[in-house]
This record gives sequence, C-alpha cells and structure tokens, in this order.
Amino acid sequence: MTMTGTDQDLYPSRLTEPRPPLKREHPAVWGDASGPFTRDELDAHEARGYTVIDDFLGAGEVTDYTAELLRLSDAPELATDERVIRERSTGAVRSVFAVHHLSEKLDRLTRDPRLLDRARQLLGSDVYLHQTRINYMPGFRGTGFYWHSDFETWHAEDGMPIPRAVSCSLALTDNYPFNGGLMVMPGSHKTFVSSVGETPEDNHASSLQAQEVGVPSEEDISQLAEQYGIDQFTGAAGSALWFDSNIMHGSGNNITPFPRSNIFMVFNSVENELVHPYAAPASRPEHIAHRENVAPLR
Amino acid sequence: MTMTGTDQDLYPSRLTEPRPPLKREHPAVWGDASGPFTRDELDAHEARGYTVIDDFLGAGEVTDYTAELLRLSDAPELATDERVIRERSTGAVRSVFAVHHLSEKLDRLTRDPRLLDRARQLLGSDVYLHQTRINYMPGFRGTGFYWHSDFETWHAEDGMPIPRAVSCSLALTDNYPFNGGLMVMPGSHKTFVSSVGETPEDNHASSLQAQEVGVPSEEDISQLAEQYGIDQFTGAAGSALWFDSNIMHGSGNNITPFPRSNIFMVFNSVENELVHPYAAPASRPEHIAHRENVAPLR
Repeated sequence: MTMTGTDQDLYPSRLTEPRPPLKREHPAVWGDASGPFTRDELDAHEARGYTVIDDFLGAGEVTDYTAELLRLSDAPELATDERVIRERSTGAVRSVFAVHHLSEKLDRLTRDPRLLDRARQLLGSDVYLHQTRINYMPGFRGTGFYWHSDFETWHAEDGMPIPRAVSCSLALTDNYPFNGGLMVMPGSHKTFVSSVGETPEDNHASSLQAQEVGVPSEEDISQLAEQYGIDQFTGAAGSALWFDSNIMHGSGNNITPFPRSNIFMVFNSVENELVHPYAAPASRPEHIAHRENVAPLR
Repeated sequence: MTMTGTDQDLYPSRLTEPRPPLKREHPAVWGDASGPFTRDELDAHEARGYTVIDDFLGAGEVTDYTAELLRLSDAPELATDERVIRERSTGAVRSVFAVHHLSEKLDRLTRDPRLLDRARQLLGSDVYLHQTRINYMPGFRGTGFYWHSDFETWHAEDGMPIPRAVSCSLALTDNYPFNGGLMVMPGSHKTFVSSVGETPEDNHASSLQAQEVGVPSEEDISQLAEQYGIDQFTGAAGSALWFDSNIMHGSGNNITPFPRSNIFMVFNSVENELVHPYAAPASRPEHIAHRENVAPLR
C-alpha cells in the first residue's frame, strides 16, 4: 500500500508569491487504539498535534543519557565533524546529529518499545529514523529557534512527501516557562503554511544555526497564534513530548542559569520514504535526512 | 531626618576585582500599615521584593494610555529626541523617557493617589520621580534585557545613596509566560550584587539598548537563582507590578506575535536625593535620572 503520490506536490512551499495557508488533509494519527496510546490519547493527539508524557524516562536514564550528551559534545574526534552544529557567536555545541550512529546507548533507545510502539501506533505502519539529534541550549546566552513547521523543511528540502512523521523530544533537563522551552501552537498541524523564497544551495549549512529560508510570514504566524493560541512544553527532566511533523513551533532565548537539553528523534512511516526534494536543488546530507537505511526499525 | 550617609559608599560596585554579594541592611518597606497596603501585603513585599496588583488600571485607562504611547512613539517632533531609545538593529522605538514631561495624561497618572499613596507608604516619606518611561517590546523580534539590579546602576551611575526607591510597571498589554515578560528573583533585593568593570564615559548612550557594564557575573546570577528561584510577571493588561529598586530581574526575547508594553515609573524617597555618582565620571542626563525637580510629588 502506498499512501503517497510522489509525483504530485501536495504541500507547495518556497514560493515566489505568498499563498494563504492550506488545510492539511492527512491525519496526524494513522493507527488504531491497540496501545500503548488509548483512544482518548490518540484523539487528543489528533486534535492538538502533540502529547506530553511525564516520567517517560527514569532518573537513572536521564543521568546516563546526559553523560552521553556530554561525551559526544566534548569528543575530540568529533571536534570538526559536520554532525556537530555550533552556536554562531560562541562556538559552543548546539546540536549533534545522527546520534544513533555515534552512541550505542542512544541507538538502543530509538528502538526501545516505549518509543517504537508509540511511533508505530501514531503513524499506523512500520517506521524508520528520519533524523536523530541531541540539542543543548546553554544558560545565560542560549538562542532559540524562530517559528517553523519541521515538515515544511523536510518536504521542501528533503523530499518527504506527506506529514506522516512524528518527533519525540526527551527532556534531559527541567523545562521551565522561562528557559527557552518549546512553544507550540496546538492544532496548527492541521494547517500547512507555505513560505516565500527559493531555497539556496547548501541552505542547511546555515539554517541549522539560524533559519533564514522556510520562515513563515508574520501575517501567517499572527493568524495561527490568534486561531490556536500558544502552549509551552514545561515538563521535568525525563518527560517526553511527541509532536506532529507539521505543528508550528519555536523557542525563545534563555538568559536564566538553567540550560536545556534533550534527545530528539524523528520517526517517519516506511510508506512515506523520501523522494527528490520538492523545493530545493539537491538533497541535504545523510546525517540530517536519512535515506540509506529505511528498513523498518526493530 | 536624613537616613542616608552620602559620604560613605555602602554599596560599592564597578570594582576592579570580583567581591561576594553583600547583605543589604536597608529595608524594602519603610512605612507603616496605614494603607493602602495592608500589613500582610507590606510583609509580603518586604520578603519577596515585589507585589502584583491585578486590575490596577481600568480597561478605558489601558486604551487611553496605549494611545498616548503610540502618539509619543510616532511624534515627528520626537523623531531625533534623546529621550526616545530605539532598537539597535531595527530602529524601532524601544523606550521613551521622561514621559511625564511629554504627556499631560501620564504626568497626571504619576500623581494619581492609587500610585502616590502606595509609593509613599512603601518608602515611608514623601517621594519624587527619579525616572519615568514607556517601554515597547514588539512581537516577533523583541529583545529582552539581561539580569540586573536597577539600584546597582542608579547608585553607580546616578548617585542614588541607598535602595529607598520603588518602581511601578503598569502593563498595557497582556503578559504571558512566553512574550518576554519580566522575570524576577523573589527575595534577591536583600542581596546587593556588585559588578566588575569601570563605567565608561557616556555609558548610557549604549547601555539603554544593551547593557554591557554593571552586569552581574554568571556565578552570582546562578547563586541567586539557586537561592531565590525565578518568578515571572504574567498579569493581564491593566495590572501593576511594584518592585524594589534592588531586585534582580531580566527578560528574555519575544518571538510571539504578542507585543508587550508598559508604563514604568520610579519613585524615590525625598530623603534619598541623588549625590555625585558613586562609580561613574559624571551624572547621566536629566531625562534618565531627574535631579532638577525633587520636590515632593503632589
């Protein structure tokens, strides 16, 4: 069964002219209520586009994965690795990509039934990893990310046909309302917001530090915020945030002394394999958008 | 009665070497419980260093003062006035100083008994205006202010002898946890944090856009956050925040579509008149730190 027409661009973006937001036709939840999520949880996820699960990781796990994060951030052999993204101003590590290739522990985590069963249920199929990374936002001078839909980028720059992917962010630090935590617009995943402007070659080299293309207009952001409001993800360390690939989200900066770090993994349906990018001259590198191994994750 | 020894610097700052934070000996509340604040409210203010009063302004007042703010921001005759402070990057108006000289409505507001009686009660004496301004933080790209104590600056750069001053911020827009609202460390007003570094001449010309001198160390901020925690001011439009001159506070940036504006006024005790700056070559201009009119406000 193939749900996706790869020859047709159902979510056009990077346009020459502004276009009003589109109603998204595809669901967020593709599976049935056979568990682990209950019917009510699935319905809430379909409506809001995200689900928070407290105490998803135990305290020991948080400690272990934090040690992994520190090890990878400081690893001399990764100092100039393209998978390590640094703050533009300070050079501090901001993200490390493809962490399931760099850490056995994190590889095992991506295949943990707590994650895998939920990803499969939400997407209604086998899944594979589209992207994994760890994110680190330091205290005092952490910089956020402006509003965006991940799917807009994955579609335009990676060739992901439809929004049949889900992200899971596992908090390794406490998320307060004031230390640069994720803001989401609940329900906004039902609206596809296109952006204006052609994607330059090698856009990813700068866009992972600060997005400049694929940015929604202020008018569209205002309209979405008016319609859907803004929620903040404020779970304690160990909590999990599952969120739809097309939800509008962003984060402010962080001047508090409390840093913020998380493990981030994106599950894509095996029925939604990447094709040629819909609005970019070439695919992004393998460590940002996996194409080589799309076998069902086990 | 003079409470203040102007010949002695009780709060040394802008030092050549870091020095541990000092215990502040002066109270935050100088008056008695004769009203409008009750004994409990005064005790809470003394302990926390701030007090929030919801619905302090009526809806009609919020509308009126917002119109005043817009009028002053757009006034052609103020386009190059030194009292108008602009965002470094965009040129948008960030603050207008000495608004009680520029607006009859705002002048009347500073003398409104709702404000004046509370200021007198907190400071236990007649009061005058040390500073007034309106602040405007735009949506999408509003930039915040890093952690600081106002009194540290007013003492070092304006010659305010002791922390016997109180600020009142009147919200003209709703303050959410996510649109760059004020963060305060409750109780931190009891600790004086000195800063390291000599004050350059004309520091105010840049410091009102982005503070570079008089900044507490990350070590001191961490210690205070650990000891006192962080509260956010999240009142609706019309709410009032009274806060002690020495409370540690700051604000993050604002990527939401919701701008944030307020009227800000600083009442100083007439027994705490400015002297020569304690740690700067010269006084700041009159519109930032009033010296000419220190008659009791009526």
